[in-house]
Amino acid sequence: MFKLKVLCKEETEQILAMNAVIDKVQEVYKQKALGETEVFPLIFHEFTPGVADMDIKSGWLKGSGLFGLKVVSWFGENVNKQIPALIGTVLVFDDNTGAPIGILDGSYITGIRTGAAGALGAKYLARTNSEKLLLVGAGHVAAFQIAAMLTLFPDITEVMVYDALDYTSAEAFVNNIKTEFLNKLGITYNKDLEFKAVKDIKSATEKSDIIITVTPAREPLIMAEWVKPGTHFSCIGADMAGKEEIDPQILKRARIFVDDVNQCINVGEIEIPIKKNIITKEDIAGEIGEIIAGITKGRENEEQITVFDATGTALLDLITAKLAFEEAEKKNIGTTVNL
Amino acid sequence: MFKLKVLCKEETEQILAMNAVIDKVQEVYKQKALGETEVFPLIFHEFTPGVADMDIKSGWLKGSGLFGLKVVSWFGENVNKQIPALIGTVLVFDDNTGAPIGILDGSYITGIRTGAAGALGAKYLARTNSEKLLLVGAGHVAAFQIAAMLTLFPDITEVMVYDALDYTSAEAFVNNIKTEFLNKLGITYNKDLEFKAVKDIKSATEKSDIIITVTPAREPLIMAEWVKPGTHFSCIGADMAGKEEIDPQILKRARIFVDDVNQCINVGEIEIPIKKNIITKEDIAGEIGEIIAGITKGRENEEQITVFDATGTALLDLITAKLAFEEAEKKNIGTTVNL
Repeated sequence: MFKLKVLCKEETEQILAMNAVIDKVQEVYKQKALGETEVFPLIFHEFTPGVADMDIKSGWLKGSGLFGLKVVSWFGENVNKQIPALIGTVLVFDDNTGAPIGILDGSYITGIRTGAAGALGAKYLARTNSEKLLLVGAGHVAAFQIAAMLTLFPDITEVMVYDALDYTSAEAFVNNIKTEFLNKLGITYNKDLEFKAVKDIKSATEKSDIIITVTPAREPLIMAEWVKPGTHFSCIGADMAGKEEIDPQILKRARIFVDDVNQCINVGEIEIPIKKNIITKEDIAGEIGEIIAGITKGRENEEQITVFDATGTALLDLITAKLAFEEAEKKNIGTTVNL
Repeated sequence: MFKLKVLCKEETEQILAMNAVIDKVQEVYKQKALGETEVFPLIFHEFTPGVADMDIKSGWLKGSGLFGLKVVSWFGENVNKQIPALIGTVLVFDDNTGAPIGILDGSYITGIRTGAAGALGAKYLARTNSEKLLLVGAGHVAAFQIAAMLTLFPDITEVMVYDALDYTSAEAFVNNIKTEFLNKLGITYNKDLEFKAVKDIKSATEKSDIIITVTPAREPLIMAEWVKPGTHFSCIGADMAGKEEIDPQILKRARIFVDDVNQCINVGEIEIPIKKNIITKEDIAGEIGEIIAGITKGRENEEQITVFDATGTALLDLITAKLAFEEAEKKNIGTTVNL
């Protein structure tokens, strides 16, 4: 019999702070670059194409003594049932005995670690004097991206939000983000910081220093000719074959980093451009962790376009889960059951 | 927040009866043959070769409304830590919403469903007048094979047990199996039934009607020239690349069924013989479920050698987990936690 720690979504929300998660994700990226991790093959299944799917991401964090997995299911019709469409479950094991340690709801963990990932891409690749941020996508993931960006880039003066399908949802998003999200997460920001919903993605792109894409798009939303020199992209949305958010011509002239080479080639933003031979595997400068570990140089000059293609690995979920268990222990939060 | 049902090993032992599990495994094999299931790719990782590994098996049981996975870890050095070497954890989801339903200890479930699998291979392929059973391997898995065989073949008169490494462990096994195992599981057996530890596998093979192999062997233990006409083999032990229990020449002249074609080709008893071109994929007569569903004929005559190569799929764990949850509900057993 094993003691299994259980943390529900509300408990993970209570104990996970953005800055702590960013530190952990940065640590994992570095561990990965140093060969201290393993990402196991991704399992993906569509129950009904476009309606319901699931994936299982798994891996081993040698440096942290853990292995495990996250199951994420997306059931679009759940919204009619008062159930979240996106459901995540993280299961963690001790790599010294193979015994289960704990299980956590993975939805908040996914949001916060994905925010950390996008912002770390900007930390290591964007120009340090970046001031204008454009979010392409106005959903839950976008809110976490903004929270993480403001944590790492306190001097940002303007956050633009674009929703390809519905301008009013971008408007609602910017109207509510401070009170409904950032304040609750305890994110501090410049009092002059402006949030703007934008209708014209071309002109928004033209003035952006950093662009984060978090949509389920299957055709590019941003064209190469709109992009000013020195722009950084964190491409977060493309996480399965067939998804694509930016013009492959942007990638053709960019310095490209990824979170995991194999996974990005198979399911990331670079998947389609590589399949179309617009770029090749050799155009990948490296994994983001190689910059963090000091193995590879990130941005080479102020004019360069940089791209971070992040598909998300179980490593991020596992390290965030570990942090959650440690915080839960300190604060005496969560349930322990016999398994 | 979701309600997650949790069942520990002791609880699964209390509620899962062998005959009920056999019925469920048979049902799943049939569902599989009728295209009502999906087996997702197997993930396998060796932490330290020969010392510690883990696998993740996952799949979808459309007919039962479930998908999910089982993580099995094998950490050989656990025996020095008073922790089981083999640890299993089953995680089950609702295929209507993608929400987690429950988590169970997977070690008893693995044993009992694997016993059911081996015995169902014999039910559909062995001669109905089979009397003499040989178990090659004297571990925990062997005990479940015997329990399931006695449930389906009440007329068995002799059970021989062979341990390639240690005759005394086979002796201890046969001395204890009634009191320590079969009686506890509520398995009834003929009062004249004899259990015998055997030293000479050649002569034991020569008189056996049914042979079940449950070892981690990497070289054949049973030679083709020892096998009498009409013998049935259920090969259970080979479940990763490189494992092999019987002489490929046996397979060459046998009618071969598998539990899952792809998985058996990659990790089953047929893996090495196919790689060595001793047999080909075309020599597989079908999946066991095709016999159950009446699609394919099993044994064709009394002289034929038959083989059932079972590598185990998550489908068996999921259907057994479902049975466990239903029984737990009836008997008010287990814990429910918020996830």
